[in-house]
Amino acid sequence: MATPLPMRGLWLQDRVLTFRDQLPRPVPGPGEALVRVRLAGVCGTDLELRRGYYPYCGIPGHEFVGEVVGGDATALLGRRVVGEINRPCGHCETCRAGRPSHCDHRAVLGLRGGQGAFAEYLCLPEGQLHPVPGDLPDQLAVFAEPLAAALQIQTQLQVRPTDRVLVVGAGRLGQLIAQTLALTGCGLAAVARHPRQRQLLAERGIALLEEDGVPARHFDVVVEASGAPAGFALARRAVRPRGTLVLKSTYRGEPAVDLSALVVDEITLVGSRCGSLAAALRLLERRAVCPEGLIEASYPLELGLEAFERAAQPGVLKVLLQP
Amino acid sequence: MATPLPMRGLWLQDRVLTFRDQLPRPVPGPGEALVRVRLAGVCGTDLELRRGYYPYCGIPGHEFVGEVVGGDATALLGRRVVGEINRPCGHCETCRAGRPSHCDHRAVLGLRGGQGAFAEYLCLPEGQLHPVPGDLPDQLAVFAEPLAAALQIQTQLQVRPTDRVLVVGAGRLGQLIAQTLALTGCGLAAVARHPRQRQLLAERGIALLEEDGVPARHFDVVVEASGAPAGFALARRAVRPRGTLVLKSTYRGEPAVDLSALVVDEITLVGSRCGSLAAALRLLERRAVCPEGLIEASYPLELGLEAFERAAQPGVLKVLLQP
Ligand SMILES: [Zn+2]
Ligand SMILES: [Zn+2]
Ligand SMILES: [Zn+2]
Ligand SMILES: [Zn+2]
Repeated sequence: MATPLPMRGLWLQDRVLTFRDQLPRPVPGPGEALVRVRLAGVCGTDLELRRGYYPYCGIPGHEFVGEVVGGDATALLGRRVVGEINRPCGHCETCRAGRPSHCDHRAVLGLRGGQGAFAEYLCLPEGQLHPVPGDLPDQLAVFAEPLAAALQIQTQLQVRPTDRVLVVGAGRLGQLIAQTLALTGCGLAAVARHPRQRQLLAERGIALLEEDGVPARHFDVVVEASGAPAGFALARRAVRPRGTLVLKSTYRGEPAVDLSALVVDEITLVGSRCGSLAAALRLLERRAVCPEGLIEASYPLELGLEAFERAAQPGVLKVLLQP
Repeated sequence: MATPLPMRGLWLQDRVLTFRDQLPRPVPGPGEALVRVRLAGVCGTDLELRRGYYPYCGIPGHEFVGEVVGGDATALLGRRVVGEINRPCGHCETCRAGRPSHCDHRAVLGLRGGQGAFAEYLCLPEGQLHPVPGDLPDQLAVFAEPLAAALQIQTQLQVRPTDRVLVVGAGRLGQLIAQTLALTGCGLAAVARHPRQRQLLAERGIALLEEDGVPARHFDVVVEASGAPAGFALARRAVRPRGTLVLKSTYRGEPAVDLSALVVDEITLVGSRCGSLAAALRLLERRAVCPEGLIEASYPLELGLEAFERAAQPGVLKVLLQP
């Protein structure tokens, strides 16, 4: 067997992140494409992984835009692509029921059992790739995955133009959520802690509320995107009886939830994760969502640790990695 | 002002329940009917009230069938009725938005700011009364309120004939929930602790599962009706990714909820409370739901304390009070 070619990339092991220049370049299996990563984004989950949110050993990173340079995806050769991060088994009951992103046996790019995007190359099955429209720059296409996650809210529930909607937390994901919700015409407000976050929302005409100025039991839909127990408490207070509280964040620790009060107020709590990349690409192509303002900095892979440090600072939005 | 006529009834004050034979008979206000209570049911909430679940001073009881004997409800005079338990203010924003049962200023029969059904008489606005079909015996009509609560599940979510559905807890409310869900044609199973509960379910052809035999991550819809933290934990384990967990019980204490896992599994949690009395009466009239098997005993008001003791025993289903 031939010695694998080397590549540069970031490596996470026992919560320690290192840059390595001799990682084995992945070799595409049957039906897989070899993708050269052009640009990747650091997401909150990457930071949580490093904090030991759950054990992962390998190359992190799941937000990327790349170019197909080899493998079986001949129709896509030379094309820029983004990719579905969940790699389901394809034959279990969950997969057959049409919920492959919840397959218990799935690998997840840069998160579980797979090598991620913070490297020069990655492999994904051809069927998980979406070609990027020609006039969509990498700096926008790299937001396809988190934008898809934001859109998942509207896959799960109907947001009406007449709804009063609050977004709690306006970080990387919260900004994209606010932008997509604004497209519904709903009465939208957001709570944001950091000046830059507030400025970006204001530029999009999204109303800002102070934390202590959020009316109680008022909003039809509240999206919790802060990942902080205090944010959850605020969101819970803000939702009206029979309203919907969408959880878009994972939490360190478990915020207290008064289940009895959920029953009395008939609240619907909806956990929400990944969404449709195709829809995200359509919105980006139409420039209906404009995430470029979220970009704080772009680092070469060699400075990946610096990129992580930067991304972990309070209020910092999107940090990119360029292999 | 005339001295009010006396009546017999139960009185709850500082968690102490007493029988009294000199309670003031309520006097109907404008638009109100005077209802003579024919039969009333003891519900889990009544037991919780007595345990100090929240402060209430007055006559408890909110499940009843009675006869209109006076007041302004002339069209209903002499008719048997059941009644909506929530008495909204009618003019706040929540009321105007069509959610009167969530009015923050509402009185609730036998639960908040109002006198309840464990007495000879009660008063309710005419608009809150529903006439009972002539051939529906009191012993069935008295179940209209908890049956409406069971039906609220299907007001809030679509239960498909193809769904796999689990009911956790088969007490007073769980039995009615299981019976109504069975009418959808769904693949229904229930977890019940007590032999009588199991027998009633088996008689309706509802599959029984042992607690340790409940398949994990399997059910499209799980209804938690046990009110016990262990029941919540079981229900959470049983629901599939992207499934729905309906909460039909209040809890003493707060069960631990892993919000992050709700996000990852995209679970929808739905709190569910009161429902449509009209729909409940229709199902009772058609005998599509048969709650008579739930009746354990019927006590006169004078033995109300005994009735409460009986109702509080583990596994006991419906205890009735006959003024
Ligand atoms: Zn992410
Ligand atoms: Zn699978
Ligand atoms: Zn009740
Ligand atoms: Zn009101």
